[in-house]
Amino acid sequence: MISVVLIGFGTVGKHLYDAFSEAKNVTIVQVYNRTESALDLIKKSVATATDLSSLTKADVYIIAATDDAIIPISKRLTLKGELVVHTSGSVLVDKLSKSNRNGSFYPLQTFSNDKKVDFRSVPICIEAENKTDLKLLQKLANEISDNIHNITSAQRKSLHLAAVFVNNFTNHLLYVGDKICNENNVPFSILSPLLKETINKLETLSPYEAQTGPAKRNDRETLEQHLGQLQEETYKRIYSTISNSIKETYGKKL
Amino acid sequence: MISVVLIGFGTVGKHLYDAFSEAKNVTIVQVYNRTESALDLIKKSVATATDLSSLTKADVYIIAATDDAIIPISKRLTLKGELVVHTSGSVLVDKLSKSNRNGSFYPLQTFSNDKKVDFRSVPICIEAENKTDLKLLQKLANEISDNIHNITSAQRKSLHLAAVFVNNFTNHLLYVGDKICNENNVPFSILSPLLKETINKLETLSPYEAQTGPAKRNDRETLEQHLGQLQEETYKRIYSTISNSIKETYGKKL
Repeated sequence: MISVVLIGFGTVGKHLYDAFSEAKNVTIVQVYNRTESALDLIKKSVATATDLSSLTKADVYIIAATDDAIIPISKRLTLKGELVVHTSGSVLVDKLSKSNRNGSFYPLQTFSNDKKVDFRSVPICIEAENKTDLKLLQKLANEISDNIHNITSAQRKSLHLAAVFVNNFTNHLLYVGDKICNENNVPFSILSPLLKETINKLETLSPYEAQTGPAKRNDRETLEQHLGQLQEETYKRIYSTISNSIKETYGKKL
Repeated sequence: MISVVLIGFGTVGKHLYDAFSEAKNVTIVQVYNRTESALDLIKKSVATATDLSSLTKADVYIIAATDDAIIPISKRLTLKGELVVHTSGSVLVDKLSKSNRNGSFYPLQTFSNDKKVDFRSVPICIEAENKTDLKLLQKLANEISDNIHNITSAQRKSLHLAAVFVNNFTNHLLYVGDKICNENNVPFSILSPLLKETINKLETLSPYEAQTGPAKRNDRETLEQHLGQLQEETYKRIYSTISNSIKETYGKKL
């Protein structure tokens, strides 16, 4: 049985809590959160804390906090020599306080409060300073996922950056597409098959090969027409910036 | 039986040719293409032409050419009073030559030469100048797809613009993500579950609700770190432009 203290009960913390609660060989012995109200939901099921100096003994301490809070939290911990990991894609493991053995336990997925995630397919990227700790993290990760990767802090940072393009930015483009449809009285749902094919295509073609559209063809008339259709400066800027990048990729410099 | 002349045998023309060839109640009576070599593949199966003034009689003439070529082609046709439609998302129907009855037959999908498409789920957006023609286009579209929409030229233009964001731009972001992974020795495939969840999420959340990431949280440290990691100016520009748009969307102006 692996005992875990969860430090932080925001979106990622909650998803990990749910996943570990269903795991056979994991006990969550305590959940810390700065504000008490967030813990109301689980108070009856698990010990909670709002004071970092009153953490229970456990095999692994997981800091599931926002990126800027992770290092300060690690430095405020009163633990000594324990295994402390964080869940961030971008924080280097060797920046954590040296009072403990450090590592990372990064679930590479987009989490929203209102949407359950099938954790078994979520890639968990783990890192530790020694082999025993890495083995323990591997065991812990295996309890909730079938998709475990040993990666370095540098690789994790690259993955996180790539993930921002693949998820955050893609989602924002879908938001803009949705808005254009709404403003012009066409249902966004007409675009669903296109969106699915955009992703399915990548099973047989690379993104380089899969590219289509007016920017790739350098179809100036359509590019200008589109810019004229867009009302907001911000969206015009997105349109130009990405179109120019596509043109550069296919050798048609402006 | 609906007889069709295909004008243009590029990517879209080829996909339409394949789809119509499998349809029960459609005969392709002729395929025109400016260059003869492109027609080599089908010469044995169907009449071909490289001269616009020698088109056969048919119920529908479909111009499947690049956006800038459509209007010039429609003006060079020697037909009179026939039903001529184009397959473009952005060309207005009333810009086509008035010598014929005009319309559009726009398959809203991303087509690549090397990737077969399941046409039955492809939305086909049709438009015609009179009810009889619209009915015929509807019948023709139904022969290859179960997803038919009557839309105006203005709506079609908006859909096409939205489609550029949803498909072309999204694909380019995936290209950049792929590149970042390659350059840093991490397999792009680790990001597959994230990409799938990005799309699946939208079955229960709107893109506005589904947004996550450092720009939405206005996590300046990560945003700066990411900009520092990117080598190419073009990608830095994409990163800033979309991040700023996300910040604006969630009320955190720069």
